[in-house]
Amino acid sequence: MRIAITGGAGFLGVSLARRILQAGSLAAGGAEPAPVDELLLVDLFPPPADLADDPRVSALVGNVDDSADALGEVDVIFHLAGVVSGAAEADFDLGMRTNVDGFRAILEHARSLPTPPVLVFTSSLAVFGADPAIGPQETVDDDTLPRPQTSYGIQKYIGEQLVADYTRRGFVRGRSVRLITVAVRPGKANAAASSFMSSIIREPLAGVRAVCPVPPDTPFAISSPARTLDGILLAATASDETWGSTTAVTLPALTTTPREMAEALERVAGPETVALIDWVEDPTIRAIVDTWPARVITARATSLGLEPEPDFESVLAQYLADHPPARGGAAPSPLV
Amino acid sequence: MRIAITGGAGFLGVSLARRILQAGSLAAGGAEPAPVDELLLVDLFPPPADLADDPRVSALVGNVDDSADALGEVDVIFHLAGVVSGAAEADFDLGMRTNVDGFRAILEHARSLPTPPVLVFTSSLAVFGADPAIGPQETVDDDTLPRPQTSYGIQKYIGEQLVADYTRRGFVRGRSVRLITVAVRPGKANAAASSFMSSIIREPLAGVRAVCPVPPDTPFAISSPARTLDGILLAATASDETWGSTTAVTLPALTTTPREMAEALERVAGPETVALIDWVEDPTIRAIVDTWPARVITARATSLGLEPEPDFESVLAQYLADHPPARGGAAPSPLV
Repeated sequence: MRIAITGGAGFLGVSLARRILQAGSLAAGGAEPAPVDELLLVDLFPPPADLADDPRVSALVGNVDDSADALGEVDVIFHLAGVVSGAAEADFDLGMRTNVDGFRAILEHARSLPTPPVLVFTSSLAVFGADPAIGPQETVDDDTLPRPQTSYGIQKYIGEQLVADYTRRGFVRGRSVRLITVAVRPGKANAAASSFMSSIIREPLAGVRAVCPVPPDTPFAISSPARTLDGILLAATASDETWGSTTAVTLPALTTTPREMAEALERVAGPETVALIDWVEDPTIRAIVDTWPARVITARATSLGLEPEPDFESVLAQYLADHPPARGGAAPSPLV
Repeated sequence: MRIAITGGAGFLGVSLARRILQAGSLAAGGAEPAPVDELLLVDLFPPPADLADDPRVSALVGNVDDSADALGEVDVIFHLAGVVSGAAEADFDLGMRTNVDGFRAILEHARSLPTPPVLVFTSSLAVFGADPAIGPQETVDDDTLPRPQTSYGIQKYIGEQLVADYTRRGFVRGRSVRLITVAVRPGKANAAASSFMSSIIREPLAGVRAVCPVPPDTPFAISSPARTLDGILLAATASDETWGSTTAVTLPALTTTPREMAEALERVAGPETVALIDWVEDPTIRAIVDTWPARVITARATSLGLEPEPDFESVLAQYLADHPPARGGAAPSPLV
């Protein structure tokens, strides 16, 4: 079997590739598991060495907008590539070109294949937003009307519509999954408003100070990297019948707060580590976070067998297992 | 003021143009009413003579996909043009090209103007559908999640998302209105599954037999031409604040049945006229009609001052006033 991952050199893409290669086979769309003969990673950057060295891996370095036809015949496409939220807001045309037109090129390529491939489209909880005339969508479920308030959210939601229609028409076997903010992520802090949801854990564990820009009891939704991959992989392996409706499935989320996170960190790493968190409110970030759904009711995901982490302690334990703190130094990360 | 109507030679476009010209002025986006200096009608066909003869009317005959930049500076755009439901289902690429890419060209033209124009986008109740995994959306309101089950419905829903984001960013002052099946329409029966909702009234009044393909008590939603135009015009004249959310407003609908329609017809035109309706069920049409929302709860439209016709008798009275039956012959129609 031949599998393509767009965005295959990003954090999730690399993690997904490693898991697929480790499993060695995939039960695409509910079929019997078949061996993974080739895994094509499409991204602006080449994949890390451990992936590049795997004989099953090939890399296509370039813009996803231009790479669609170079995918060739594939059985499964994981479409993770895209312009992120902040960039799509800063440059409307770039977001439309990549997140809408680039994805349409992928869908058209898939449609041109002799056998419709399974296509997993990673949408986002960012399809929900705080409509100024209505207010935030604090709790959402599978039937909640998305009211995106960013160009990124609009573009992802358009992607969901395209997946639904291409699937209904039999051009692809598409499945849209709405990802939750992934935490704890390895690597470095970035400009995303959600960056603190990882950095207030990751940095103190590495002996580095980190700022929490929202009040300690601010609720928000997160998903561990492992549970996020569970959802993406289930979307690829469920049968059409099991998957059900062509509308998007929101993945399960753990609703937590900075206070809960800090308490879990203190139990594991002690008060000196927690003291490295600076509680300095940033009204801009707080306002953005307040527009995000903090609670998701995910009946479809649950019926598909997906569950969120039970508590933040489990998320933290997973992070520590994957990234054991180096003695007196920064936590090693395969992606830094 | 300069106004453009795409689809300006169709039934609704022509009716809208006549109403705007008759009023002579328009209060665009809540501003003071300003005289209509030029009304540009864009369509594949030239407008009818009464419009073409009006010195304020100019016509642009051509494909809407290619006409966007020829609109020039406009204060208000009514975007009614599009590939209809059946055609968009028969030819996926045509629908995407016209209903998505053609509309994007209009939006990009609007964005290029020095002052963001008011843009009314006519979406459709066809954004709702009977998801095979979930079932029909029998009753819908402003917060119901659309699950389009046709390419037309998907394309209209994508249009709504584009309107929302172009408006949020200040590129246009967009308003999406979801139209209800318009009945009673003048003219001829067509291939649309909803065609009977007009023809079982129009044809008997003209002394011609007509088939009702659904059981007499099948509920469905209709809107009279006048109430439909009320909604489209209100969308153009409401202030941004009054209009509120950038999500679409579903226009009010009268829920009626063929039995109610026939009873109203009998009271007005007698049993011989009603006897011209042949009750011959067509399972295909019945199945399609059963997937359409029969009841709409339109809180936003109501708060904007829009109301459905109170009963089918009122719809029929309006049709008879606009199209008095000719002695022993077909009802005259400006559009036949």
